[in-house]
Amino acid sequence: MSISVVENLKKLREAMMQNGIDGYLINGSDPHLSEYMPEHWQSREFISGFSGSYGYLAFTQEEAVLWTDSRYFLQAEEQLKDTGIKMLKARLPESITPESWLAERMKYGDTVAMDASCYPISEIKSLEKLLVPEGVAIKYNVDLLEDIWDDRPDLPMNALSDYPIENAGVSRVDKIKIIKQELAAQKCNATVVTSLDDIAWTFNIRGSDVECNPVVLAYGLITPDKVTLFVDAVKLDDEIQQNIIADGIEIQNYDQFYEVLKSLKNLEILIDQVRTNALIEQLLRDNNQLSYGVSVPNLLKATKNSTEVKGFRQAMLSDGLALLDFQLWLEKELDKRDVSEFEIAEKLEYFRSKQKGYIGISFFPIVGYKDHGAIVHFHVTPESANMVSKDGVLLFDSGGQYEMGTTDITRTIRLGTVSKQTKIDFTLVLKGMIALSKVKFMKGAVGCHLDILARHALWQKGLNYGHGTGHGVGARLNVHEGPMAIRQDLLDVLIQPGMVLSNEPGLYRENEYGIRTENIILCVEQETTEFGTFYGFESLTLYPIDTTLIDIDLLADEEIDWINDYHQLVKVKLGVLATAEQFELLDRLTQAISK
Amino acid sequence: MSISVVENLKKLREAMMQNGIDGYLINGSDPHLSEYMPEHWQSREFISGFSGSYGYLAFTQEEAVLWTDSRYFLQAEEQLKDTGIKMLKARLPESITPESWLAERMKYGDTVAMDASCYPISEIKSLEKLLVPEGVAIKYNVDLLEDIWDDRPDLPMNALSDYPIENAGVSRVDKIKIIKQELAAQKCNATVVTSLDDIAWTFNIRGSDVECNPVVLAYGLITPDKVTLFVDAVKLDDEIQQNIIADGIEIQNYDQFYEVLKSLKNLEILIDQVRTNALIEQLLRDNNQLSYGVSVPNLLKATKNSTEVKGFRQAMLSDGLALLDFQLWLEKELDKRDVSEFEIAEKLEYFRSKQKGYIGISFFPIVGYKDHGAIVHFHVTPESANMVSKDGVLLFDSGGQYEMGTTDITRTIRLGTVSKQTKIDFTLVLKGMIALSKVKFMKGAVGCHLDILARHALWQKGLNYGHGTGHGVGARLNVHEGPMAIRQDLLDVLIQPGMVLSNEPGLYRENEYGIRTENIILCVEQETTEFGTFYGFESLTLYPIDTTLIDIDLLADEEIDWINDYHQLVKVKLGVLATAEQFELLDRLTQAISK
Repeated sequence: MSISVVENLKKLREAMMQNGIDGYLINGSDPHLSEYMPEHWQSREFISGFSGSYGYLAFTQEEAVLWTDSRYFLQAEEQLKDTGIKMLKARLPESITPESWLAERMKYGDTVAMDASCYPISEIKSLEKLLVPEGVAIKYNVDLLEDIWDDRPDLPMNALSDYPIENAGVSRVDKIKIIKQELAAQKCNATVVTSLDDIAWTFNIRGSDVECNPVVLAYGLITPDKVTLFVDAVKLDDEIQQNIIADGIEIQNYDQFYEVLKSLKNLEILIDQVRTNALIEQLLRDNNQLSYGVSVPNLLKATKNSTEVKGFRQAMLSDGLALLDFQLWLEKELDKRDVSEFEIAEKLEYFRSKQKGYIGISFFPIVGYKDHGAIVHFHVTPESANMVSKDGVLLFDSGGQYEMGTTDITRTIRLGTVSKQTKIDFTLVLKGMIALSKVKFMKGAVGCHLDILARHALWQKGLNYGHGTGHGVGARLNVHEGPMAIRQDLLDVLIQPGMVLSNEPGLYRENEYGIRTENIILCVEQETTEFGTFYGFESLTLYPIDTTLIDIDLLADEEIDWINDYHQLVKVKLGVLATAEQFELLDRLTQAISK
Repeated sequence: MSISVVENLKKLREAMMQNGIDGYLINGSDPHLSEYMPEHWQSREFISGFSGSYGYLAFTQEEAVLWTDSRYFLQAEEQLKDTGIKMLKARLPESITPESWLAERMKYGDTVAMDASCYPISEIKSLEKLLVPEGVAIKYNVDLLEDIWDDRPDLPMNALSDYPIENAGVSRVDKIKIIKQELAAQKCNATVVTSLDDIAWTFNIRGSDVECNPVVLAYGLITPDKVTLFVDAVKLDDEIQQNIIADGIEIQNYDQFYEVLKSLKNLEILIDQVRTNALIEQLLRDNNQLSYGVSVPNLLKATKNSTEVKGFRQAMLSDGLALLDFQLWLEKELDKRDVSEFEIAEKLEYFRSKQKGYIGISFFPIVGYKDHGAIVHFHVTPESANMVSKDGVLLFDSGGQYEMGTTDITRTIRLGTVSKQTKIDFTLVLKGMIALSKVKFMKGAVGCHLDILARHALWQKGLNYGHGTGHGVGARLNVHEGPMAIRQDLLDVLIQPGMVLSNEPGLYRENEYGIRTENIILCVEQETTEFGTFYGFESLTLYPIDTTLIDIDLLADEEIDWINDYHQLVKVKLGVLATAEQFELLDRLTQAISK
């Protein structure tokens, strides 16, 4: 990999020179600002060789830099070796932004360029704020990779399917009606829907244009006159096409979107600065009035309706049974032989695939044994896989897409002898996970208010994990979704009943092991008193937590009660569906613990 | 009061009519955007009769509205009775802003006005954002009260004093040097210093132009050429004037400030949108380049140097001894007679005044017995005072200005029989206060991350308090200072070593009682591990917490340990200075507790 990276970097710098560009930016996103995207837009990996899901790049003639976050520090160091690209740490208090990094290097009269169709409006604005006053010019719509990337993959053209009302709960006609009402409440009459999962949710369609994410390459446009879905005709069969048109939605080709934007006039358009690319704003701003706010479908989608919640519950049962099969298999195999991390990843998929309604994995599984467990988003391949034996702990983070819902679960299990420190670490992580699971909090709280609950026990011992505590989870959609999150970022999105989030504190000891315990939780209303309305969480995930890794002296009575109650629930819910063999394991794993 | 309020309101509406103004705003602040200010600017109280420290008003011909926060809901309802002014609740998730309230009432072609010299830039901007697109005109510099307010008090002209280097720790010359360095780092070369406490800190001066706040009416201006203090000459004696001039600072009269601003050209000025009034921005923006950021002296002032911390420690000793005297007195008197809340407030001041270095109260004491305790910022007067007897609980929140430092402490003490609920409430509040006192948190945390620690125990029982958990405390300066705070607002200011804050959760049961326990805490560095740097707090306040109000079954062992350790510290620190009588009380109040 690194030889082609070095060559491509040379070509990129030549292209910069020819085009009079002194600083060039690549954030590795697509025009939908996706976290995961078709290979066509995987420019970050193409130009750097770095395969993580978070990172952005800046180039000058002298330097090349990739920023990524702590999940990927080890992986990036490894993958960038000998490429001439230096890794910088993002999302730390001391991190410097690419904007500031470039501002320090550019001088009066220099030019910075990027493909603004892959940049959110907000990032372009902060870049302008820093560079323009310094006399640095910005060229917005420059894709220098076009000429370098010889075998660039085509855009995917997979068929899409209707997502039935039995699973969606609300029809696309009703969703569009609600979106329009919300736009009117915000004194707007139009909006663009550009996030692929927002489009899938709004139009009740699903597809397979992005690995693991059941989305369709498309754009949506809602104006007072009409609602348009921009999607290539080849993806729709006649029946779906007729259904969509019958619902009053016009269909145009995907590549017509930007042309149509140019023709829009005198509209009051709500636009999400974080979720809309800067090219779209450039095309709309002169002839329309733009209001900035959170994307309406993005916010609506975050609060699941009762049908969607039912779907999650259904999927969790399938997932729990699949994991029982997996653990039965693993225990048996380890009695006989060592097993590679890669085989474990495959088996996680295999046992899920035997469940009714299974569609595919919801993300590439993370399977980390011993030191690999400390690489937060370790991408296991046949070559990189460790052999797993009856010793230490194994971390596995995996999930499935089922017809009715999406799952995402992490467990860390004991395979043999573990150190006292491992048990202490496991228990401190668990304390955080329990604190968030059982908290009652007052309406009005946002994710950054709650994040400390999951970190508190670790912090008291000088420990921490370098990732967020919880992300939104899509309803038979992307396993990561916004706009809310439980993390330290000062994100002004209320946590509200119906929201589904992950709860996944962890601890990673470099070269030793990693620990993470993750459940999916549903925000529910708990009570209203004279002091206000209080919410809490219900744990949706149904799988035992390894009690043999608990240092029980570190747990308070209420924490022990929570574990025993949770295990009782898991046993009852999975038990009625379990085979005799599954039940035997389930029964062993859910034995009550006490001091 | 309400008769003159009604008359003045009539005059105000006539003036609005004459000036073609359809909506008029009064926020009750001054050109320094002070929380507490000279009577000259107490326009909120003049026009509405409401005497709380937080509130803003909007007027149309049909309606008059005052917003205030939960500390003052009861008081405002009371004081606004029969005035025709309606109270609306601010700082709640469902609160509407005055901007939105006005936007709903104004129509195309209407005019809204205010005295922009009393409004922060940020508020004027959000007002413009809502009103201008609707075709509503804004008149910025309209003070309609000028002609209505017949006996408006003059500006204060009290003498100022030098704040000696022995107390300040750093000279004004060095402070200005650091401010200039910080401005340069932010690519600016000038700033205005307009908050009165920022001015007092920067120039090492103290005064008495505002009750309880030892500040001087002044402005500061820092440009590449010179540093100017705008203060009326009559306030300075020859020696101070010579000292200031010898330090390279020019002195001009207070009323020259805005004239000088008009003459500034081609400067790169750092301006704080929250702490600078909008008139200042209007005068500067055309001829200079403005950068927006947190006021440099405001941020520097928040991190106390070792001399200032020593000053706090000194003041806490004086305060603790004074409160021992107070409690001795109270216990003796209550054995003989009932005592009024007002007399208690006076006695709190009296016993502090006997301490060495005492200057005055740091805020008007809150003394709330039984139902008055539930009025969070109850302002006790001889007329409003309850009689206090040997029953229930008494809440007192008071503080002093001493030569070396500033104090602010709340205790809730048992005077006789209390209900089981009172003890539970007291203990839940205490648990929150302990959780914040003993937390270890990772560098990078801001106040809204920590706030939940103080609320968690209450929330689990469906309880809450409607105010922030902690405010910054000035070093022999204002008892409330920024820019940091421990509250739910998403305020992006790191909590850092040297910062001094209050820690004051509470619980208020309307018509029953109020509970609050408040210590002043100092942020300190605790340890650096491979996972990061961790901070914590040291409790500066030295006074026992009433253990007879604790329901010990609700406390964990570590919480009991914290109380016993804290009481041991209090006993040792105050004990060496105590008289025999004081020590006897101290010894009784600090007896160790156990399950």
